[in-house]
Amino acid sequence: MSRRRLLGTAGAVGAGGLVVGGLGGASVAEAVREDPDPLSGVGSATVPFHGDHQAGIADPAQAHGHLLAFDLAPGADRKAAAALLRRWSATAAELAEGRTPKGDDTGIALDAGPSSLTVTFGFGRSFFDRTGLTDRRPAALEPLPAFTQDALDPKRGDGDLWVQIGADDALVAFHALRLLRKQAGDAVRPRWEMSGFNRTPGATPRPMTQRNLMGQVDGTNNPKPTDPDFEEKIFVPRDRKGPDAWMAGGSYAVVRRIRMLLDTWDNLPLERQERVIGRRKSDGAPLSGGGETTPVDLEKIGPDGALAIAGDAHVRVAAPSANRGATMLRRAFSYHDGFRDDGAPDAGLLFVAWQADPMKGFVPVQRKLDRGDGLSRFLRHEASGLFAVPGGCAEGEYVGQRLLEG
Amino acid sequence: MSRRRLLGTAGAVGAGGLVVGGLGGASVAEAVREDPDPLSGVGSATVPFHGDHQAGIADPAQAHGHLLAFDLAPGADRKAAAALLRRWSATAAELAEGRTPKGDDTGIALDAGPSSLTVTFGFGRSFFDRTGLTDRRPAALEPLPAFTQDALDPKRGDGDLWVQIGADDALVAFHALRLLRKQAGDAVRPRWEMSGFNRTPGATPRPMTQRNLMGQVDGTNNPKPTDPDFEEKIFVPRDRKGPDAWMAGGSYAVVRRIRMLLDTWDNLPLERQERVIGRRKSDGAPLSGGGETTPVDLEKIGPDGALAIAGDAHVRVAAPSANRGATMLRRAFSYHDGFRDDGAPDAGLLFVAWQADPMKGFVPVQRKLDRGDGLSRFLRHEASGLFAVPGGCAEGEYVGQRLLEG
Ligand code: HEM
Ligand code: HEM
Repeated sequence: MSRRRLLGTAGAVGAGGLVVGGLGGASVAEAVREDPDPLSGVGSATVPFHGDHQAGIADPAQAHGHLLAFDLAPGADRKAAAALLRRWSATAAELAEGRTPKGDDTGIALDAGPSSLTVTFGFGRSFFDRTGLTDRRPAALEPLPAFTQDALDPKRGDGDLWVQIGADDALVAFHALRLLRKQAGDAVRPRWEMSGFNRTPGATPRPMTQRNLMGQVDGTNNPKPTDPDFEEKIFVPRDRKGPDAWMAGGSYAVVRRIRMLLDTWDNLPLERQERVIGRRKSDGAPLSGGGETTPVDLEKIGPDGALAIAGDAHVRVAAPSANRGATMLRRAFSYHDGFRDDGAPDAGLLFVAWQADPMKGFVPVQRKLDRGDGLSRFLRHEASGLFAVPGGCAEGEYVGQRLLEG
Repeated sequence: MSRRRLLGTAGAVGAGGLVVGGLGGASVAEAVREDPDPLSGVGSATVPFHGDHQAGIADPAQAHGHLLAFDLAPGADRKAAAALLRRWSATAAELAEGRTPKGDDTGIALDAGPSSLTVTFGFGRSFFDRTGLTDRRPAALEPLPAFTQDALDPKRGDGDLWVQIGADDALVAFHALRLLRKQAGDAVRPRWEMSGFNRTPGATPRPMTQRNLMGQVDGTNNPKPTDPDFEEKIFVPRDRKGPDAWMAGGSYAVVRRIRMLLDTWDNLPLERQERVIGRRKSDGAPLSGGGETTPVDLEKIGPDGALAIAGDAHVRVAAPSANRGATMLRRAFSYHDGFRDDGAPDAGLLFVAWQADPMKGFVPVQRKLDRGDGLSRFLRHEASGLFAVPGGCAEGEYVGQRLLEG
């Protein structure tokens, strides 16, 4: 094991790619690691910030996530928003590469690698009125319809600006959150903030589909980036025309804080839990047979003469085939914020669904689930947001530039 | 990569030590992994539950932590408490080995290994009155003195029973929390719950001292299990006599929820931040010179003729040498629960300090810090608890047995 030592060299990148610089002016404040150990595994993994699409959509959900919404402060206009998105994009790009932004003395993420950090930016419906951009607002940002089972807290929903942070290390994620908050300064007011988690990489013998807090394997039948229609279903076309041409390569995020009624759920015998979903709990295999990735056979009749996958099973009601092909990419974090006044756990899913058009993704499926899903008895949708997430940007550009300067 | 397959064998342990069984009675409910991949790294690590001391004290703090306090329900007596601790101990032992307790269908931790899970049990002062054991209550459980800087919320402090859960995987930790809560049933009422985190193993190139949310390397000068007086300072002697003889091999946990005034802190230039602690932020080296582990030289005079480590530096005021040898083992988790109504981050340290006697550990040091610590301007102690944590138990025994059956 090599010892760390302070030398005089500023913000250098060690042979292992680990940046230990970025410290401010004092004499002891510029550090480089001697004999750096190469980072490997969790810490070293990076997800590039720049690209056609923003990061944090088609890449795997990380072990830690923060969802934040901000409202522009009174007086903050389109120019202020543009300056903010420029600053935020530059910072997100540096952090994603494991670099410490200039002037950042917080030190919170020192020692750790970028740990698959992603930062994703979006605009809520109210953003466009506040910035005089109402005529550029996408029709897809129409408010979501009310669903009968909704029990939404408006204070924890929507917002002008939305930020999604994900990383496999909690301090790396918190560091990004702090920097972005500080850079926004008085231009914004925090509206809501939610934090969630997934498995720690390495806790399972090999990468696997996530489990949620109901214990289900969750994410199996997600569209895959290798599917021929993945781009079309998840992202706005690159040749998008009209007032929302700036959304080319972007996507719409539906965010729902869905509390799980875990005490009720846990009282249900395993077999009935499995009928509610239509998949086995142990390994996520469909009740129509096969293993986790075997296609679901919704017509299959079991030995008892009944449908192998029940009429109100979640995977039946949510399936694209039952919703005229409606498709979304679910990329969720579990949450657990202690217990409620009634003693029940305040825990569930920070459900984030991505699609090219919410009317061809979340909305029709949730309409159907709202009425006919066996799972909905065990859920409470407590907060909701819909955000236009622009396409990614190239180096030197910033997210939302085509909207804010176009 | 081997595929998972369901066979008919119950709850077997695969070659890799991974248990995938423990599922309830249904036909699909007993599973074993075919060709199990050996677990390695994060998931496979175990901390034994049984032993002279409880787990979760002298072993490294994990990536996820939950601190829970319960009050006994009216009518729950010593016998009920004994039954609960017996059940809890058995479950904690199984989970620590990566086994799924019988009848546990939650599935939340399936796939993952034990991930260094520890569960630690303690008794608060009020426990002894409720259970008719007042005459066995240790003098060391005298309420902590009031400190001038305290801003404590009594609803989030103390409690009859205390449970500390730690694991390197969030779902493994949540699973333990759910099981223990369910097993307690109506015998207890949840009083408070706090969750925190540390670095993900593998996020840094090699194991390192943790950082806290102020960005400091935190834990360097902790007593080490290899120190000759470690046992004596941290644990109650094995030959303890008198009414609290049942605490032999145990320890006292002081729990403080300490919010950090991060906005104020971040406005302080790096050099002044370092003076507040007396150590360099980048690598934790003392301002008296050397590297992280170089002993602090409190007498050292700097080139400017002033003390290298300031008079009110945290490490000076807290040092055992300044407190007649008072020593504690700090084993903390960072916390971050969104933001407060005033917009400030609700974040800081779930400070847990372990010692053989709080009067020779936390209390004298905190008295001194309360008056003279440069760091205290940036902190708010918002909740406090003191718990008697009995020694560990052998297989077939349970934690607290010597108290509850003695
Ligand atoms: C806490 C709430 C929810 C839980 C616990 C949950 C759980 C699950 C599980 C276990 C599966 C099967 C595995 C998989 O393919 O991922 C699944 C599938 C699915 N869920 Fe959910 N879900 C929830 C909410 C929703 C919502 C709100 C929507 C959309 C409005 C949704 C849409 C889908 C879709 C489209 C599938 C795939 C169906 C298929 O094609 O087979 N889910 N969900
Ligand atoms: C959020 C609150 C606190 C923060 C951020 C903090 C931070 C630190 C840091 C950075 C160090 C130097 C590195 C090390 O040796 O671990 C340290 C040392 C220490 N702290 Fe704290 N501390 C906090 C609260 C406390 C409290 C409440 C106590 C006890 C009442 C305490 C007792 C100590 C002790 C005994 C040392 C070691 C001193 C030595 O022997 O060099 N700390 N702390």
